[in-house]
Amino acid sequence: MEPIKVFELSKEYLESLREAIELTDIDFIKQSFDGVNEADIAALLDELNMQEALYVLRLLEAEVAADILIELDEDSLTRVIYEMEPSELAAYIDQMDSDDAVDILNLLTVREREDVISHLQEKEKSAHILDLLRYDEDSAGGLMAKEFIKANKNWNVIQTIEEIRRQAEKVEKIYSIYVVDNKQHLLGRVSLKKIILASSDTKIADIYEPELISVPTHLDEEEVAEIMRRYDLESIPVVNAKNKLVGRITVDDILDVIREQSEEDMQAMTGISADVEESDSIFRISKARLPWLLIGVIGGLMGAKIIGFFEDGLSKYIALASFIPLVAATGGNVGIQSSSLVVQTLASKSVFDDTPWQRFIKGLLIALLNGVVLGLFVFAVVKFIYGFEAIFGFTIGLAMFCVVLLASFMGTVTPLVLNRFGVNPAIASGPFITTANDLIGLAVYFGVAMLLLNL
Amino acid sequence: MEPIKVFELSKEYLESLREAIELTDIDFIKQSFDGVNEADIAALLDELNMQEALYVLRLLEAEVAADILIELDEDSLTRVIYEMEPSELAAYIDQMDSDDAVDILNLLTVREREDVISHLQEKEKSAHILDLLRYDEDSAGGLMAKEFIKANKNWNVIQTIEEIRRQAEKVEKIYSIYVVDNKQHLLGRVSLKKIILASSDTKIADIYEPELISVPTHLDEEEVAEIMRRYDLESIPVVNAKNKLVGRITVDDILDVIREQSEEDMQAMTGISADVEESDSIFRISKARLPWLLIGVIGGLMGAKIIGFFEDGLSKYIALASFIPLVAATGGNVGIQSSSLVVQTLASKSVFDDTPWQRFIKGLLIALLNGVVLGLFVFAVVKFIYGFEAIFGFTIGLAMFCVVLLASFMGTVTPLVLNRFGVNPAIASGPFITTANDLIGLAVYFGVAMLLLNL
Repeated sequence: MEPIKVFELSKEYLESLREAIELTDIDFIKQSFDGVNEADIAALLDELNMQEALYVLRLLEAEVAADILIELDEDSLTRVIYEMEPSELAAYIDQMDSDDAVDILNLLTVREREDVISHLQEKEKSAHILDLLRYDEDSAGGLMAKEFIKANKNWNVIQTIEEIRRQAEKVEKIYSIYVVDNKQHLLGRVSLKKIILASSDTKIADIYEPELISVPTHLDEEEVAEIMRRYDLESIPVVNAKNKLVGRITVDDILDVIREQSEEDMQAMTGISADVEESDSIFRISKARLPWLLIGVIGGLMGAKIIGFFEDGLSKYIALASFIPLVAATGGNVGIQSSSLVVQTLASKSVFDDTPWQRFIKGLLIALLNGVVLGLFVFAVVKFIYGFEAIFGFTIGLAMFCVVLLASFMGTVTPLVLNRFGVNPAIASGPFITTANDLIGLAVYFGVAMLLLNL
Repeated sequence: MEPIKVFELSKEYLESLREAIELTDIDFIKQSFDGVNEADIAALLDELNMQEALYVLRLLEAEVAADILIELDEDSLTRVIYEMEPSELAAYIDQMDSDDAVDILNLLTVREREDVISHLQEKEKSAHILDLLRYDEDSAGGLMAKEFIKANKNWNVIQTIEEIRRQAEKVEKIYSIYVVDNKQHLLGRVSLKKIILASSDTKIADIYEPELISVPTHLDEEEVAEIMRRYDLESIPVVNAKNKLVGRITVDDILDVIREQSEEDMQAMTGISADVEESDSIFRISKARLPWLLIGVIGGLMGAKIIGFFEDGLSKYIALASFIPLVAATGGNVGIQSSSLVVQTLASKSVFDDTPWQRFIKGLLIALLNGVVLGLFVFAVVKFIYGFEAIFGFTIGLAMFCVVLLASFMGTVTPLVLNRFGVNPAIASGPFITTANDLIGLAVYFGVAMLLLNL
């Protein structure tokens, strides 16, 4: 047994698949997918063009094709479903869990969506889907599925097993059985292990665990992820405002949320606007990168204006120019460090976090310490190693100190302000803020120099 | 029912807990923890000092205290266990799963570790722990636990349920039952759902699923995380070189791996050397931040030398100084964008990735496109808006073009080289590389200017 099938995928195989598609060698295609995980087939189809991918999907059983569709990347998925008739797409969606179905329907316009839903065979599923479509995609309601097992607290074990049997087809992974009262209020959970080990006539009310963590439908998906990580949960029930059980979120969806979140943060920090990958086209990548580079360039051009303003002083003390990159780089580095520490704290959402004022004071103390150390170091190098006069060394050192203080302040305050207004605080470490920091740093540097050097 | 107990924790409660500890009000402490999740109690204890935390832990049942210990942050945990006698720590470890036990023992020296293990009550557990201690902490072997349910393929459902009953205490969450042959080779899995729905005399051989993804003990934890995410797994079996089943990794540990990884990447990019949080002391934070800032400062001072080298030219054409920040910032932004795209691709480890050469060519084309656009833009602004002579505009534009090209090259190549040598490629976006890029950018800028402006 090969431990992991993914390692069998290769470029050579992709080529032979393309050939088989061209030759309509149906047997080869079907055979070669035998025993391969749907996620791996999806990774293959992501590499094919839309026509080829659609050809392969139509060869497979609807259930398998549905599992593959779910795993396609968003680009391929969009291209493929836009080519399908509503009835064809509906046939696949009939095979999906409600949460996956909703993720796909969300790629369509409202009109197309309704068209597809009207073609669904299972009326229960279309009711579930219509319910789920009401929630914000990034909330617990948008993540949850309607497929889960619930048991009334008055049932016994036999009745519960009967329910599991009835739902076995629909609910692939059970994890916990949620226990509700007659009004569907969530009371607790009982594990499959307990069901197996209990005698048939045991009442659910006697074996369920009442301590249960649930989330409300409106909770943000990142908070759901943090709760599931914190409490080591593989599934979590979702309740509405009246504490009625309305859905369940499983950890596989949470892994995707966390990955997306960390990619988003990385992209916010590095200034790549759209959701691009290295495998995208040159124009697409450039389109995503250029806007942020242009912001940086415009900032740099504004910086040129600021320096131009001090040109007279600069021509009298040409060495000032040499230390421009030092000041700019230090300001940038300090700003990014400060903001990333704040962003990290915001992400963990502990109730024991310092108040904004405590943070501010602490950030100030750290900045003072760093500023003094770096300022003295720079003074010493400029004076004793580079051999400039003491007043010049003092000027550069003091400018460093001021820039460290200012950049720390900006780096601490900006993510807090962004967070308050519901903007992803990670962009505080991105190009826009870094550029703004650079400009302020330059103005401070030359301001200090003009004053101290009497220029 | 409160949906999430964590919201009940507050600073006021922390204060009342501190008071109760001082007054040795045992009843208050025990009562107030009633129904509170261990992860939340751990978050509280993280805020107490070592003596207070230890006092609280010793009031609680060993099983509860063990669960809390696992959830403490590494600093608090280290302080607390260093205060315990080996026999006391052993009593807690007796209550833990083997993987958690090993995580804690890894904080001790080899000698202390052996001392604690010699005090363990359960001989089976100490054998498990000794086995797990052999593996690298960051590998599948270092993540796995010895607590899981396995069934021989020749057993029937009744025998399997008997095994579940026998292990029920030890294995809290079962997920899947792994199926092995007489030589302990992993054959497949059977879900609890199937066990519940099958009749008692059904053979395991008839109902198990042979398609099963497993990982070898030596696989890196990040690759394990990617496999579990990709295939939507909540647990994965770990096999040795002979395909014998030796452990199981559960998704809760993977969530922690992913979080640590994204924090590590963020810290590599922002240049904070140790694992610090905003709540750490001012000196600890400064100690983590200063080394990287100093690297930046030393880079900046070297930059001053480079510029000083061109001082004669600069004094003739003072406006050159104005565009130093523009060139430096653009080089930095382009370098970070390029490297982060590469880092992202490296993390996803697709078999369909471009070869290094294809990457290089593609990166070059993107850099050419970006370089031309930005170069022309800068030329136009410098010439037509800022009103400099054409040759000066052309100089700045051409320097921009060269810097974009060079920064893209460095940004693409550096993470690939780092990755090849087993270093986290995310540091390619960090301060060290950014500083190096700045220096090269400055040299290119002045080189171009000296040539074109005949300085």
